[in-house]
Amino acid sequence: MAVIRRYPKSRVEAFTDGIMAIVITLLVLELGVAAGAEEDLFQAILDEWPSYFAYFVSFFTIGAFWLRHNAITTAISGVDSAFVRLNLLAIFFVSFLPFPTKLLAEFLENEEQTRVAAVFYGIVLFLAALSFNLLWRYAVHHRRLLGPNLPGEEVQALNDSLAPSLVGYVVAILIGLAFPRVAVLLYLDTAVLIALPVGMLRHALRPAWR
Amino acid sequence: MAVIRRYPKSRVEAFTDGIMAIVITLLVLELGVAAGAEEDLFQAILDEWPSYFAYFVSFFTIGAFWLRHNAITTAISGVDSAFVRLNLLAIFFVSFLPFPTKLLAEFLENEEQTRVAAVFYGIVLFLAALSFNLLWRYAVHHRRLLGPNLPGEEVQALNDSLAPSLVGYVVAILIGLAFPRVAVLLYLDTAVLIALPVGMLRHALRPAWR
Amino acid sequence: MAVIRRYPKSRVEAFTDGIMAIVITLLVLELGVAAGAEEDLFQAILDEWPSYFAYFVSFFTIGAFWLRHNAITTAISGVDSAFVRLNLLAIFFVSFLPFPTKLLAEFLENEEQTRVAAVFYGIVLFLAALSFNLLWRYAVHHRRLLGPNLPGEEVQALNDSLAPSLVGYVVAILIGLAFPRVAVLLYLDTAVLIALPVGMLRHALRPAWR
Amino acid sequence: MAVIRRYPKSRVEAFTDGIMAIVITLLVLELGVAAGAEEDLFQAILDEWPSYFAYFVSFFTIGAFWLRHNAITTAISGVDSAFVRLNLLAIFFVSFLPFPTKLLAEFLENEEQTRVAAVFYGIVLFLAALSFNLLWRYAVHHRRLLGPNLPGEEVQALNDSLAPSLVGYVVAILIGLAFPRVAVLLYLDTAVLIALPVGMLRHALRPAWR
Repeated sequence: MAVIRRYPKSRVEAFTDGIMAIVITLLVLELGVAAGAEEDLFQAILDEWPSYFAYFVSFFTIGAFWLRHNAITTAISGVDSAFVRLNLLAIFFVSFLPFPTKLLAEFLENEEQTRVAAVFYGIVLFLAALSFNLLWRYAVHHRRLLGPNLPGEEVQALNDSLAPSLVGYVVAILIGLAFPRVAVLLYLDTAVLIALPVGMLRHALRPAWR
Repeated sequence: MAVIRRYPKSRVEAFTDGIMAIVITLLVLELGVAAGAEEDLFQAILDEWPSYFAYFVSFFTIGAFWLRHNAITTAISGVDSAFVRLNLLAIFFVSFLPFPTKLLAEFLENEEQTRVAAVFYGIVLFLAALSFNLLWRYAVHHRRLLGPNLPGEEVQALNDSLAPSLVGYVVAILIGLAFPRVAVLLYLDTAVLIALPVGMLRHALRPAWR
Repeated sequence: MAVIRRYPKSRVEAFTDGIMAIVITLLVLELGVAAGAEEDLFQAILDEWPSYFAYFVSFFTIGAFWLRHNAITTAISGVDSAFVRLNLLAIFFVSFLPFPTKLLAEFLENEEQTRVAAVFYGIVLFLAALSFNLLWRYAVHHRRLLGPNLPGEEVQALNDSLAPSLVGYVVAILIGLAFPRVAVLLYLDTAVLIALPVGMLRHALRPAWR
Repeated sequence: MAVIRRYPKSRVEAFTDGIMAIVITLLVLELGVAAGAEEDLFQAILDEWPSYFAYFVSFFTIGAFWLRHNAITTAISGVDSAFVRLNLLAIFFVSFLPFPTKLLAEFLENEEQTRVAAVFYGIVLFLAALSFNLLWRYAVHHRRLLGPNLPGEEVQALNDSLAPSLVGYVVAILIGLAFPRVAVLLYLDTAVLIALPVGMLRHALRPAWR
């Protein structure tokens, strides 16, 4: 294997942070109330529940991807040319998410179209997760980009946490073909488990509330 | 309590800065003049006062949240997994604000719908303030994430400045049920007091103008 | 004067950079071609010249404000509470600019409405320049936030470069009342002189082209 | 040549990263399905292929410009006033790209209008590439901004990689006058070759899959 030049990772982090911050925030632009809301604004706000739901799922899904990216760049000590490009591919799929989110919000009340929207959403999630796995696999192969002091069990822990989501998304897509709304709940569950680990918080906060 | 690994806080700050910068800037996208403005543009611009007002309130409200976030991360010396996730929750509510802002701008001239919009706005503010308090409480409990040299009186000062806004928002929401426009003025007042402390400026600038 | 605590300036820079980057980029969202463009796209693109013009003026105006902000934070060695809040006020006016830009683009072909749009644009520019001057005056008073090694002539140079734009904008607004399109050219001129100093470039590049 | 003051490059990088992150993300806002999509959402999503295609091309084109910018700022050890302004010009053209992208997406199915859209797109790409070349030429002239330890062959490598794209874009524009869709494929090819170098990845990953 040829010698590969390493660069500081700070700018890749800054660019990725910027893109994820924008993607996660753009989602709110899709929220609004339907025409005729001046009749009964309270009802009009309630009627928008599919939008809020899709917003919530996508916000914490992107948040979960940001956490994974954080875990990867914390483990590595620098980047090379190929890593930067794989990173671009990974954020490509994440930054595509607002589009299937919009479709999900628009069609969540229509049973037949929810199937299409839920499966489309799942495929984008799968491709994003796949490219994050590829990014990590590339960095970790022969410890190519890892810091010299990173213990092996941390590498293993990251392996264990990144791989399962791939299987999970395939299962969710398949379920989505038959029960689209169940698939959406699975996407939500995956995101919330990663981004808001209730158990971890309960444990950490227990002494505080005693 | 188990040993909790700490990470550098720089990336959490960068991600939060990015999101708040975007949210505070997206608000301007909602500004525009109604159809028919070519008749009398001056009047058309004046007619948009509820939009400017809602824009002003939300800009400085988000600015005030950014100042609070700054105060929190200045006090801590590192972050852990739970802090990062609580931070995600806190910015979730902040990044939701453009939606109630849009409703407020749209319905500020209609008495009945202003009630709904003002209370909805207040609830989102309350949830954001609640999650910022939770974030701080988590960091400060048993001095979990505080720097070793942070004096106790600074911790107390932050406690004192973060808690009251919760009570204030509850009061504003209750007032909003009866007098919606008064509630909006209270939101404005809270934001401006934090983000533009006139007293502090007058004191600091006095020697300059003498 | 009471002792004022100083904080690192990095986060104020990051937040300001983020906001200015977004504001400068949002402007492109307003660009588009009118309905019926499929008839003759080339003509439809040409017809949009007021949009391009307004886009160009605002892009380099915001770029010029970013350069000024850069000059200010390069000169100071830290920030305090009041500086952070004055900074928030300064970026408030900058982040408002997309709205008068949109009006300028929309009404540049209508003589009477251009007057309103050009004066409105000028007032926002004036308020932005005023708040940047205030920010600098605050930092420089009694060398409050200046680094100990900053030479006095650099302070003077910044004084000299920040103050004149205030007078310039007042003149442009007054001209705009009578000759709105001349005022727009003055805004353009001011921005380009700061953001693209042709003379400086010619001097610097001369040896390269010889 | 007069002595030119150098400034740290971090803030120019941060501002540029922010702008590029926003521009690359704004593109997704243009994606949507046509009215009547509730009839057959699957078909409606497929019908949007020109949008996806334009999105894909522009995402990786902007990604490629970001990589070039990275290469330039990695090579230099500081910035001066003129570099900052040339940088502003370079990102001006990049941040303009969403507009021709939108036109390309809208008119890719119409043979005659694709010609106009493809040539317009190419001209903006050419101007962006030209300003990146100017930026690099300025930095490298008499090693003005280069770090003292940067080897000459790296400078040559950057020269070799930045210049050809100019010729390439001119060729693509000329081809676009006759065969607009071929030109679009050339833009795609250029972007993908830079942003996703398949060969480099295959080489780097080979040991991993053996």
